[in-house]
Amino acid sequence: MPSPLPPLLYTDTLTSADMLYFGRVEVHDPFVAFGARGKKFTVQGSLEFGRVKKTSAFDVVLSREDWLDAAKKKFGPTAGVAEMIVCLARAHGVKAFRIADDFSASLYVKLTKLGLRLEFANGMLFPEREVKSDQEAAFIREGNRLSSVGFATAEKILRAARIKGRTLVHQGQLLTSERLRFLIDVAIKEQGGEARDTIVAGGDQACDPHERGSGPLRPHELIILDIFPRHAASGYYGDMTRTYLKGRPREVQRRMVATVYEAMRGAIRGIRAGVDGRDVHQGVVDFFKSEGYETKRDANGATGFIHGTGHGLGLAVHDPGSRLGAVSSKLKEGAVVTVEPGLYYPGLGGCRWEDVVQVTATGAKLLSRHPYNWEIR
Amino acid sequence: MPSPLPPLLYTDTLTSADMLYFGRVEVHDPFVAFGARGKKFTVQGSLEFGRVKKTSAFDVVLSREDWLDAAKKKFGPTAGVAEMIVCLARAHGVKAFRIADDFSASLYVKLTKLGLRLEFANGMLFPEREVKSDQEAAFIREGNRLSSVGFATAEKILRAARIKGRTLVHQGQLLTSERLRFLIDVAIKEQGGEARDTIVAGGDQACDPHERGSGPLRPHELIILDIFPRHAASGYYGDMTRTYLKGRPREVQRRMVATVYEAMRGAIRGIRAGVDGRDVHQGVVDFFKSEGYETKRDANGATGFIHGTGHGLGLAVHDPGSRLGAVSSKLKEGAVVTVEPGLYYPGLGGCRWEDVVQVTATGAKLLSRHPYNWEIR
Repeated sequence: MPSPLPPLLYTDTLTSADMLYFGRVEVHDPFVAFGARGKKFTVQGSLEFGRVKKTSAFDVVLSREDWLDAAKKKFGPTAGVAEMIVCLARAHGVKAFRIADDFSASLYVKLTKLGLRLEFANGMLFPEREVKSDQEAAFIREGNRLSSVGFATAEKILRAARIKGRTLVHQGQLLTSERLRFLIDVAIKEQGGEARDTIVAGGDQACDPHERGSGPLRPHELIILDIFPRHAASGYYGDMTRTYLKGRPREVQRRMVATVYEAMRGAIRGIRAGVDGRDVHQGVVDFFKSEGYETKRDANGATGFIHGTGHGLGLAVHDPGSRLGAVSSKLKEGAVVTVEPGLYYPGLGGCRWEDVVQVTATGAKLLSRHPYNWEIR
Repeated sequence: MPSPLPPLLYTDTLTSADMLYFGRVEVHDPFVAFGARGKKFTVQGSLEFGRVKKTSAFDVVLSREDWLDAAKKKFGPTAGVAEMIVCLARAHGVKAFRIADDFSASLYVKLTKLGLRLEFANGMLFPEREVKSDQEAAFIREGNRLSSVGFATAEKILRAARIKGRTLVHQGQLLTSERLRFLIDVAIKEQGGEARDTIVAGGDQACDPHERGSGPLRPHELIILDIFPRHAASGYYGDMTRTYLKGRPREVQRRMVATVYEAMRGAIRGIRAGVDGRDVHQGVVDFFKSEGYETKRDANGATGFIHGTGHGLGLAVHDPGSRLGAVSSKLKEGAVVTVEPGLYYPGLGGCRWEDVVQVTATGAKLLSRHPYNWEIR
């Protein structure tokens, strides 16, 4: 197999986890990075130059001002990023680059017109991103530890809260999704994490799995907490979900919660390198059906098990590569995936359990740990 | 002038403020959105369908499952997003779309091969994003009010802190950049904002303008606080900078702080619709030079005034359109820009002041308000 072409990137690290993976430094405006002769190059303006030189994984940091000047000398005064990249490629002996599928289309057209050969990665730009090193797995564990900090905070508050009619009262205040989210996110921040869009959704709100939740939390209703904080020091994410109920569960709630938990345990047992993630997902679909939990879709949305079983996790909350869903995806040794079955029925509410595992040759290694006690009196 | 082609987007709202502007709903995985016959369409999977239908600005929400099925019927079982878009275009009578310059290159190539005509926006996909309505200006004011909450928090802490040798002590703890950032960000979160990467950089750390700052804050040194929170309810950003010093300033620090303040005031006086932002920026460059503050660049970075004077602000921290920098940019009536000159000299430290203005026919309307008291005893 011929060795792959060196990569070319033009994006920022808020948008692109690939760029963060490549350079290991955060830069919030688009910039050029590329490989040549086995080394990592980047081009930075004076505003970022010093910081990137000091703290990044780039082997060589070039000056944008200098290289734009060079491009203008060669191509005339209107030369921009495209012409600069062509100059850089020539100077570093690169005739063709591989690019991400979501590379800027206008830049692609300009570079192609200028005669630079570009090949799509046609999948992951850095396939090695799928397989997590021990160090990366440790960072993801840190992310999940931060999720666990969030759950512990929430449990303490739900335990302390008093039921007053159809509301919960905590420290004299009505307990809302917003308030609980705030206290969870602050606890995580204090421990070195950044939680954004934490889901605290009770009752029927949880039936839209991406609804963040708002307004008063109700007693005797299922409450889904999905916490996916970024471990600030490393940039890696945790992603875990727990379901709670403050008060007295009904038997139908109990059964649903137990069934979703069984589904998660079953899915984890089915994971090992070489297995197709689609089969793991289908196993969950079949299990729910066999337990009498139907999935239906109509003009107003869907009920039942209405999302995939799991996705990759790493420098992005939804990392590319191995996953557990409707599309075929052979699980790779070392890949990290979430396992998060859920059931959603308006009237009954939603339930989701989510843990994180690393795929091994013989099974799945748990990278997340937090109890599953969901009933809070 | 012929009316512009309807837009086509395939991205997510974390990555693309254009998508957020178009649909006014947050969706964190890529999805299709387009215009046809003056209406806004989107295609959503069952996971997002209900929420998007209820809360977005899209006129029509279509089912991804249904339209992928349609694409497979027409193009065969491997049909994906590209084939689905072609089906959607045909069904809605659209022969050509305009796309953002950073549209996915691989999707661009596929769609073009399938015969769909795509034209680059060649600049902003939604030029109207540059001109902020009264409602949008109010949201940006809210963002800046959140920045001001952060400054007030920091001032209170710096005032309460005691100087102990070369350190600051607050509530018995060493006051660090990390601690102050945490307390600022929490105060902002409590008020409905999301602050990320808040800059709290003292001494020479501030000489890298994008360095966030770390470790103990020192007395008698300049401390730059750059706070750019997102107003969570609207998605709009604030962006303000204040410089502080706890202890006794030296005369060189006093003079630098006063000079940067004068530069900001001068730049704001020079702003009105029709003026070239490059001229405003050049005015700041010239002013600093006339005051004896040289800008220099060498292999290790740059010192002096090493960044642009200001950028657009809105649904992104760096909004496209009108700006104050080295590139020509005619300021549009209604545009919102930051005004943020700064000086950076290792040994002396960094100073930056930043306010936000909306361009009017006759001048600049301030959208940010917070005092400029920087000496804290």
